This record gives sequence, structure tokens and C-alpha cells, in this order.
Amino acid sequence: MDGLMELAQPDMAGVDALIRDRMQSPVAVIPALAEHLIGGSAKRLRPLLTIAAARLSGAQDDSCLKLAAAVEFIHTATLLHDDVVDSSELRRGKVAAHLIWGAPASVLVGDFLFARAFELMVEAGSMQALEILARASRVIAEGEVLQLTRAHDLNLHQDMYLEIIKAKTAELFAAAAEAGAVSAGASPEQCLALRKYGQDLGVAFQLVDDSLDYSGVSKDLGKNPGDDFREGKATLPLLLAIARTGAAEKAFWDRAVARLEQADGDFERARDLITGVGALDATLDLAADYAGKAKGELAEFPAGNSWRPALEDLADFAVSRLR
Amino acid sequence: MDGLMELAQPDMAGVDALIRDRMQSPVAVIPALAEHLIGGSAKRLRPLLTIAAARLSGAQDDSCLKLAAAVEFIHTATLLHDDVVDSSELRRGKVAAHLIWGAPASVLVGDFLFARAFELMVEAGSMQALEILARASRVIAEGEVLQLTRAHDLNLHQDMYLEIIKAKTAELFAAAAEAGAVSAGASPEQCLALRKYGQDLGVAFQLVDDSLDYSGVSKDLGKNPGDDFREGKATLPLLLAIARTGAAEKAFWDRAVARLEQADGDFERARDLITGVGALDATLDLAADYAGKAKGELAEFPAGNSWRPALEDLADFAVSRLR
Repeated sequence: MDGLMELAQPDMAGVDALIRDRMQSPVAVIPALAEHLIGGSAKRLRPLLTIAAARLSGAQDDSCLKLAAAVEFIHTATLLHDDVVDSSELRRGKVAAHLIWGAPASVLVGDFLFARAFELMVEAGSMQALEILARASRVIAEGEVLQLTRAHDLNLHQDMYLEIIKAKTAELFAAAAEAGAVSAGASPEQCLALRKYGQDLGVAFQLVDDSLDYSGVSKDLGKNPGDDFREGKATLPLLLAIARTGAAEKAFWDRAVARLEQADGDFERARDLITGVGALDATLDLAADYAGKAKGELAEFPAGNSWRPALEDLADFAVSRLR
Repeated sequence: MDGLMELAQPDMAGVDALIRDRMQSPVAVIPALAEHLIGGSAKRLRPLLTIAAARLSGAQDDSCLKLAAAVEFIHTATLLHDDVVDSSELRRGKVAAHLIWGAPASVLVGDFLFARAFELMVEAGSMQALEILARASRVIAEGEVLQLTRAHDLNLHQDMYLEIIKAKTAELFAAAAEAGAVSAGASPEQCLALRKYGQDLGVAFQLVDDSLDYSGVSKDLGKNPGDDFREGKATLPLLLAIARTGAAEKAFWDRAVARLEQADGDFERARDLITGVGALDATLDLAADYAGKAKGELAEFPAGNSWRPALEDLADFAVSRLR
């Protein structure tokens, strides 16, 4: 995705400056905690989508920069709250904020960033972009609650799993791209194409992320591999492995995932089962399908627009993180 | 405040219907948790302010109803997060939601309600009202974090205490009234007057609330008296008592409040000291000053407008809850 990074570099420098400016507050804990998360190894993938969608749609002014910063603030707020909800230990390669400043500060600084996001959207001045991102914020929360209530359900159907990740992850990708297109005055067809591109990319991205939990190493992940397994989180690689190993391993999955009674070596055994029955490959095949669909949506734009191949490369990159 | 209630009744029925409609979600935990809090003994004081400010300013249409519902959602979201942050046990006369559904669900349903608030504001269609309420949401979060970091500071100056309650409580009262005025197309002077009315009323309200923690009974409060003391929260009655009792009681305050090493009878001793040195009366005198200032702001509006005496009565009511 070097091409995209190079194209977007001047805009992304502006987004970074905005982020750093708007995370300030006279209440010192707020910028300290925000800096810990935002100053880390953030990929800034979602604001990049807003910028790329706006420029691909012919945006001439810089109102997309404010929307991009707002998108990153929404994302960071959800990360802060997620880490409290999941009691995660690592985030973006650093100790999770709630372990340093406490869960209360993490919850409240998340609220601060969420509110700041809406202040930035008001500045950007597009009521339609506000509508898209307000709706996305609500859908994300619904997806998170849905995941919370179905987290340990070993019989979770693949369709329900996809519904959850569409809400909790892909919706912000979709809204980030759509809001960029809307702010640039793109046609309804182009706005919809970029929304679908973002959604499919987001699903692919989450599927790869869920796979990496069983095959990655801490250094690359910015979090501990096996976190999902230790939390008993019903992600697709696990769900497929449970279905495919059937009665033979039922006792193991019931104990280690459903009841969360885990012993040394359980994660390695789960990983070997997941790889052995092809559950990891099946998850990555599905991710590749979504990435392919995402690329197809870009046909709505002229091939000569240099942002189009750059966004095609981003879809390829999303699924190349693993194999 | 019977007059205000009667005047606002038709509008408030509409606000209630909107609230009940927009707290729905296909994710069943969300309406269940929201109903627990919203269906309780909610006073709906903040949305009432939005309605009254809009009607006093001559609002002819019903866009203020959506803003009023948004204000109540912002308030409910902050309550859910506050109760997690403070580990409170009671809220609005019921067991706090996080003790039933868990802290993770409370955090995420708070996020849902916050996002829903912004969806309602988008529907209301006033960018200026959006700006006011987005800013207020950010200021509230800053106030909450500030309180968190200064919570056990027995040397907290009265000015800093007032700064904290202006941010965490009075800002939403101010924004609720201002947004109502703005949506009705009031003049800048009238918008500012209603903003100040809301802010002063909010300060008075919080001062009375902080006093009630030392003099009320559970039934009236909807929460346990002594909660602030047991959390070591530096509210004005306590701060004044600490300053006024001086060296004689320093060891007691240090142990019971600063170090939170409390024994049976400590709350009763604190309450007697607070009453004995006049700290409770001083807090209520200050509340009465703010309520008086709030009433003065209404001079910007014609005395013949029936909403004006109704809002004057509301200011009186705010400080009459105790004596």
C-alpha cells in the first residue's frame, strides 16, 4: 500500500496535526492518556479511507481532513471502551491504558474523544456526514453489545458472526469512506460504491485480525496472540474448528472455551486443531472474497484516477498481512 | 413547579414517546437496560429545560422535542458511565444497571445512547444546536475526569469545586436551555440569557444534591445518603467542614476521607460536624444565590409570557428540595 501512503501523505500529515491539536485539554490526564494510544503504532487506516474516498471523488477543499480526524477519534474511543470491556492487556504494542490510568479514566477519556469527534464533524459542516457517522457510532455500540451477549456461544452461526463484525468493525470502515465521498459531493452511486468498498474491506480486515490471533506473533499484532482464545471469544476460525472437529473434541472446547477452564498448552492445542481442519485457511479465503468484492466496487470510478489503484492495493494489503 | 409541568405536559408526552421509540434496538439487552434507567423515577429536568426554553422563545414547531430527547439520552449515557466509574449501588431508586447487566454492558449501552442522541440532533436539523450539545458532551467528560483526579483532595479550593460542577453538571443544563432557544430562532441575547439561566440552575441543583447526600433519606434521593462520603468525594459541604473544623478534626478527615479508612459511625460524625459548623447552610445559601441569579436572567423575556414565571418557579423548586 506504498502508493496510497504516498498519495495521501500530505493530507494525512494534516489529519495528524488536527488529531494532536484536538486531543488537548486543560485536564492533563486526557492528553496524556490519548497520546499513549494515538501516539502509538496506530495505522490510521480509517481516516486514510476518508481521505482516499474524498480525493477519489474529486474533493478540492480540506473539509475531509476534519472528518478523517473525527473518524480516528471515534475509533480510538471505541478502543478505549473495548479494552475496559474485554480487560485487554495490550493495545497497539503498549500496555492497555486502563492498566495505567484505571478503567474509570479510560471510560471518560473515551467519552471525551467521542464528543470531540462530533465537534470536528460540526466544524466540517456536512449534516449528511454527521448523519452517517452518528449512525455508525450507534451501530458499532449495538455490535459490541451483541458480541458481549454472544461471546461464549460455541454454536454461533457464521451468519451471526458476520453480522457482528459488520456492525462492530466494518460499519466504521463503511462510514469513513462514505462520509469522505459525501463531503466531496460525490454522486449517490459513488457514495454507495465507496460505502460498500469500506464495508467489504472492514469485514476482510476483521477476518484477518481474527486469524492472526491464532497465527501471529506479538511483535506484529501489537497485542498478545491467543487473547481471543483466552477470553473464549467466538471468532470464525474457532467456530469453524468447533464445527469441523465435531464430537471428538467437544469436551475440550466445552471446557476451554465455553467454561473458560484453561490449562497450559490449551491455546497451542486449539491452534493446531484450527490449522489442522483448515479453519484458518477457510477464514482467509472468505477474507480474500470480501477484499475482491471491495475492489470490484471501485469500478464506479475512472481507472485513470490514481486513487483507484491505490485503494485496490489497500484491499490486497488487508488480506496479505498473513499469507 | 406544578405550573411548568402543566404547561410542558403535552410536549413532554411527545418527548417521552420519542425516548421510548429511540431506545429500541434489535439487540435485546439495550432496551432492557435503558428501560431500567429511563423507566425509573427520572425527573426529566434537562429535556424540560429544552422544551421550556424553546417555547419561551416562541418555538412554533416540534423540532425542540427531538433535541429534548437527545439531551435526556446524553444525560442517561453519562449516568451509566458515572455509575461504573463510581461503582455506585443505587440510581433513581433502583439497583444500578452495572450490578445487574455488568459494567461492560453499562459502558456500551451508554455509548449507544450517546450515539442515538446525535442521530436525534441530526434529525432536528440545527447545526448550531449540534455544536452546543457536542461541546457540552466534551465539557462534561472533562469535568468528570477532573473530578476523578481531584476526588480525594481535601484541600480542593471552592473555586475549583465550582469549576468541576459547572463542567460535569451545569454545562448540560446550560446547553439544554441554549439548544432549545437556538432551535426556536431566539435572538443571541435571549440564547445567552437562557444559557446562563441553565448554568446557574445547574450549579444550584448540584449544590443541593451534594447537600442532600448529608441530610436526605434514601426514599427521596433515589440513592443512598452518605455515598459521596463513603467514596471520599470532595463536595462543598465536606470541603467547608474540613476548612472550618481545622486542626481539631484533621486526623478524622485524613483517615475517613483522604485514606478512606472508615468505621461505623464515621458518616454520622461527619454529618454532625458538617451541620454543626454551618457547612450545610453555607452550601444551601450559595445554591440560593445561584437560583436567584438564574431567575434574574429571565428578565430578557416578557413578563406576560407564561413560560417565564414557570421557569422562575423551577429555580425556586431546585433549592426548596431541602429546606
